[in-house]
Amino acid sequence: MTKINLDFVENLTLQEKADLVSGKDFWFTAKVPGVDAMMMTDGPSGLRKQENTGDALGINDAVDAVCFPSSALTACSFDDQMLYKLGEHLGIAANAEHIGVLLGPGVNIKRSPLAGRNFEYFSEEPLLAGRMGTAYVKGVQSKGVGVSVKHFAANNRENQRFTSSSNIDERTLREVYLAQFEQIVKEAHPATIMCSYNRLNGTLNSQNQRLLTDILRNEWGFEGLVMSDWGAVADHIAAIKAGLDLEMPGKGDVSTKEIINAVHSGMLEESTLNRSVLRVLKMAEKYGRQNQPRVKYDKAEQHAFARQMADDGIVLLKNAENLLPLNGTQSIAVIGELAKKPRYEGGGSSHVNAHKVVTPLEASPTGSDYAAGYSLAGKEEDYEQAITLAKNKDVVVFFAGFPAEMETEGFDKQTINLPANQTALLSEILKVNPNVIVVLENGSAVAMPWADQVPAIVETYLAGEAVGEATWDILMGKVNPSGKLAESFPLRLEDNPTYGTFDANHDNENYYEGIFVGYRYYDLHNIPVRFPFGHGLSYTDFEYHNLKLKEDSNSVHVTFEIQNTGDRTGKDVPQLYLGNRASRVEVPVWTLVDFIKVELQPGEEKAVTFELPRRAFSWYNATEKRWEADNGKYQIAVGHSSRELSLIADFELTIGIDPVGHITGDTYVGELMAMKSAKVMDALKNAKMLDTIKQSLATPDGAAIFNNIPIRSLTMTGIKHEQIIRFLRDVNY
Amino acid sequence: MTKINLDFVENLTLQEKADLVSGKDFWFTAKVPGVDAMMMTDGPSGLRKQENTGDALGINDAVDAVCFPSSALTACSFDDQMLYKLGEHLGIAANAEHIGVLLGPGVNIKRSPLAGRNFEYFSEEPLLAGRMGTAYVKGVQSKGVGVSVKHFAANNRENQRFTSSSNIDERTLREVYLAQFEQIVKEAHPATIMCSYNRLNGTLNSQNQRLLTDILRNEWGFEGLVMSDWGAVADHIAAIKAGLDLEMPGKGDVSTKEIINAVHSGMLEESTLNRSVLRVLKMAEKYGRQNQPRVKYDKAEQHAFARQMADDGIVLLKNAENLLPLNGTQSIAVIGELAKKPRYEGGGSSHVNAHKVVTPLEASPTGSDYAAGYSLAGKEEDYEQAITLAKNKDVVVFFAGFPAEMETEGFDKQTINLPANQTALLSEILKVNPNVIVVLENGSAVAMPWADQVPAIVETYLAGEAVGEATWDILMGKVNPSGKLAESFPLRLEDNPTYGTFDANHDNENYYEGIFVGYRYYDLHNIPVRFPFGHGLSYTDFEYHNLKLKEDSNSVHVTFEIQNTGDRTGKDVPQLYLGNRASRVEVPVWTLVDFIKVELQPGEEKAVTFELPRRAFSWYNATEKRWEADNGKYQIAVGHSSRELSLIADFELTIGIDPVGHITGDTYVGELMAMKSAKVMDALKNAKMLDTIKQSLATPDGAAIFNNIPIRSLTMTGIKHEQIIRFLRDVNY
Repeated sequence: MTKINLDFVENLTLQEKADLVSGKDFWFTAKVPGVDAMMMTDGPSGLRKQENTGDALGINDAVDAVCFPSSALTACSFDDQMLYKLGEHLGIAANAEHIGVLLGPGVNIKRSPLAGRNFEYFSEEPLLAGRMGTAYVKGVQSKGVGVSVKHFAANNRENQRFTSSSNIDERTLREVYLAQFEQIVKEAHPATIMCSYNRLNGTLNSQNQRLLTDILRNEWGFEGLVMSDWGAVADHIAAIKAGLDLEMPGKGDVSTKEIINAVHSGMLEESTLNRSVLRVLKMAEKYGRQNQPRVKYDKAEQHAFARQMADDGIVLLKNAENLLPLNGTQSIAVIGELAKKPRYEGGGSSHVNAHKVVTPLEASPTGSDYAAGYSLAGKEEDYEQAITLAKNKDVVVFFAGFPAEMETEGFDKQTINLPANQTALLSEILKVNPNVIVVLENGSAVAMPWADQVPAIVETYLAGEAVGEATWDILMGKVNPSGKLAESFPLRLEDNPTYGTFDANHDNENYYEGIFVGYRYYDLHNIPVRFPFGHGLSYTDFEYHNLKLKEDSNSVHVTFEIQNTGDRTGKDVPQLYLGNRASRVEVPVWTLVDFIKVELQPGEEKAVTFELPRRAFSWYNATEKRWEADNGKYQIAVGHSSRELSLIADFELTIGIDPVGHITGDTYVGELMAMKSAKVMDALKNAKMLDTIKQSLATPDGAAIFNNIPIRSLTMTGIKHEQIIRFLRDVNY
Repeated sequence: MTKINLDFVENLTLQEKADLVSGKDFWFTAKVPGVDAMMMTDGPSGLRKQENTGDALGINDAVDAVCFPSSALTACSFDDQMLYKLGEHLGIAANAEHIGVLLGPGVNIKRSPLAGRNFEYFSEEPLLAGRMGTAYVKGVQSKGVGVSVKHFAANNRENQRFTSSSNIDERTLREVYLAQFEQIVKEAHPATIMCSYNRLNGTLNSQNQRLLTDILRNEWGFEGLVMSDWGAVADHIAAIKAGLDLEMPGKGDVSTKEIINAVHSGMLEESTLNRSVLRVLKMAEKYGRQNQPRVKYDKAEQHAFARQMADDGIVLLKNAENLLPLNGTQSIAVIGELAKKPRYEGGGSSHVNAHKVVTPLEASPTGSDYAAGYSLAGKEEDYEQAITLAKNKDVVVFFAGFPAEMETEGFDKQTINLPANQTALLSEILKVNPNVIVVLENGSAVAMPWADQVPAIVETYLAGEAVGEATWDILMGKVNPSGKLAESFPLRLEDNPTYGTFDANHDNENYYEGIFVGYRYYDLHNIPVRFPFGHGLSYTDFEYHNLKLKEDSNSVHVTFEIQNTGDRTGKDVPQLYLGNRASRVEVPVWTLVDFIKVELQPGEEKAVTFELPRRAFSWYNATEKRWEADNGKYQIAVGHSSRELSLIADFELTIGIDPVGHITGDTYVGELMAMKSAKVMDALKNAKMLDTIKQSLATPDGAAIFNNIPIRSLTMTGIKHEQIIRFLRDVNY
């Protein structure tokens, strides 16, 4: 039974209250008699618990913990169940380490491939980010540990992240940048939300009442606590008023005095302060576990799970002539310093003191030989040796990727090209041995101008401490790959909609592309991509058949069959895309609306059912402030990726609303005539307008021109204003 | 001596006042004792004076008048002097026909190649549209005839043009969609401005006080009259209050009663009404000429000018192996119904009852033979005959283009592809004779997937009634072509930034691309185009040398030399582009800032000087509400087109303002350190911050991460809030 309530809060001193709404230090809340301090810790992919000097950027030591794959890879699993299990493991570790709240997951949208923190986020697609995030949060919280879902909201660049304003129209904000937070809040009830550094349309998020209170609490029903990102608070009083509960880390006496003074001067209502104090105490009471006995947990088991999680996410991008899986008899050259010093985690707050890193080199099959060829410092290393090795082996497994210095929290990338020393070496190796498998280690999309020359490409992202084992699981076919890209890989960085404007403006990041983020943009402009969103190969084949649609009073049911037509057991991710051809607003050509991970034996067939709620058909109407599903024509497609749609069906929605509203002076002649309504015709006749309209429509170009004139401007055709008034009165009577 | 003043207005009856602010009919203002009615007429490219039934869409008869080239072509001249002369001719004709105000020019920006009215506008580049418009307006008004510059503003689509809202951020509005109006108002003092149908950011332009009063009058000093586009007024009272003076056409008694009632009820101040009445009367007094004797004017001379104007604008897009000019000895096949029934003008309000159309077929050299091959109705016509003719002649001049039904005022296009019957025929002809010259007749950019197969392409747009003579002037080399494209021709419509969103939203047109319109977008994303903005070939060659830059206290002087290195006299348009590398906002890679049309004899060299005012370096800072030229690095280039820059020089501007302002808590560490200021260093030392900062910057990734932290958030590095306060106090002391 909780002892924390408003009475408890009101009995605290003002000093105690002021202490509570600022972090005691880097990781702890303040304590008051009866409620102990609670510890938070970084680490969406593994705990970064600092016991000595705290910092926000992954610099100082942390406790030993299993490093799981980063979200860039886990999202590629498209596997809710695995994300739930990942959450459970993190919860177990946090529990054992007396962590009350785990600072993650990060669910921001990958808007630009240059954004420094993409590795820590799930996807360019809010539906996928929301689903992965929901499962993760449920998993962590099932173990009694809270999460802080971050970074709320529209924190999509690192440069000037403390001040720059993300300028986004309301519809885009709702559909792309808030939708995943909304889903997680409503479905997973996270303990806390972390507000981000940036401004949103001019207002700092830490002081953004509309975001932190109106939308988050009043619209979505969030009942947890809002904390700041570390150092995000510029004006603590304004922040508390706007709905921020906890400033992290605290500024010590300065913070406390400021609050006390503000209450005394009347600038801050004590009741407003109490509201936040109550939330801090409730969180500390529920999740604080400083005084529990320290327990051990099974890190070997967690390591095994880290490997499974990576197995489930790694994406086989290309596999010409079925070069993969390796058959166990080929001789193998392992090339690239990244085989020996893998990138397996992101930098900054994601940095984990990994329990047991197994490198790709260590995990390579007996008999493989290694040469670096290049160094991560940008130089050549054992260059000739690498070429010779490549020449003398059956196949080359070439490890390539971004060095850690190139992508970490805190600043954005300048390029998505691999370092020149890697691509130069690759090019030379291809001259002596065409059987090259490129294994990529990187935080986000890579340009691959060399892709056509390479028969096989495997994307491992930042695969966690079991990177070596998981990589060879895929290469050797011990695991049949089933990961799908959670972001588009463009042919050129210039093809991305944010190119040239991302990071170009010191004070403002203008979201020019609107809702057309990622594949939605490439599809809209019919721009070829290197590898599309949702793409990923398998060692077996899957076919989809027999798509059927059925509408009931609340949703649309989609069924089809999936069959494993190959000769290996494998997992597949059929993806459901919706094409809205009804609404009279700009919409993506196709939008992902559902997906599922399915395992099938060779030859096995399963029925898949998706139920699409009204929301799946909806766009956010900012004028009416509502989600709107319009009646009319839609297309529904089942695809292997966003660019490989194998089943497409037409569909007419009737459970939504009619996109043409009632008739006003602004209704166009074309719309009016298209209604084919007897009432409209009668009213036109009564107002003696019908003949004039029909004559006008019959002139050369008439239909095109006159259909595009609103009723109120029909005076242009000789109709009198009085007739129009009469018609509008009659037709709306 | 004027008799019109406020006293005169105040002595009118309310009925008379109400009459005056609505058009008496389609083309006339109302008259009152002492001031006669004044006639307006359509026709930016020639008068469309209707003496019987009036209409807004070019349907009923108009008087005989010379049809000049449409603005899409005249802009390609890049020739202020010719535009001035065009204006003079129009003024003379208007004068003779007793027209008070000519409704034109249209100076809107060509944002999408699909926009139905592009033919009537000058360019995708506001600088060019502004310069051409200014010269045109000065020319017309030099003859005592007023103009109505249209359509104010951001009227960039035809579909739903009466209601749709052009949603544009303030910077883009100022830099792209208002800049040309601003230039014309300030430099040419047009008698009137015509407000457009559409909404701007939600408010109907006819009721847009910010646009019609705050910006137009208060900021720019406009002293003329604002009239509505025909049928654009939805709420006349709101419109008058916002700054609209004259509703066109009037709604008769309905309009009058409405105003009288509004004054009686107090909804409309009579003084506000008087303001508009005064402007209507001043216009009618100054420009009304109904009672003057009717004079004749020399239409043959105007026809000759129409030919010259077309000669000056026609663009030689491609000329492989110098197939053009024809040498007079080749036998010629003239193919295409457009040779016989040319497109030489736009539809809708631009439609002229042309004085004397000379078709390309009529003007073709003696001995040429003709076959249609295709019909404008979309069919084949004399198909075999055309193929045979093509086979048996030395060269084929193939006339291609958009049928009139495809592009006119009132609706937008669906494609920029030529009709399939034309391209199919072209393809067959190329099989029998490779020496094909394609002559294009069209209102705006055309996709040319066939361009690589054709050796020569000539763009004539809508060349006016002398289309035939002008076309052969160019083909036969009687005139050396000097036109340059005033718009980009993309490879594919999909490459245009508006693709997929243009016309997609019934109520809103969202200007996603911001300032990146036309070539600015293609350059930003490094997208190849078919023919770039500014492109146009000559029968001679021009070279540029010796670029020099010099800054004085108010402007930057640019000088270089241009030489005709070929063997024909010719005109060239050297184009000056600016690349802003200084400002901390997104900017185009290159922006046109000046140009000049120069004629040179073979071998002749001339010095060219441009003087760039501060405004040429400026961007519109919407936060500060000012044009801002930032000190720092720029590049200045002289180009043959936007994609062929032959001279480039670096330049450091010092007469602007410093883009980094004073130091606040929001100043980033990187910016602070880059100042290399002794005062900053001292203040950091005094606050005991310098060592911590230097240590942080020296850690791995430190420079990248810590440079990107603002001073206020340095608490993250262990610096105390008190130290920061002290530093800020000291450094700003």
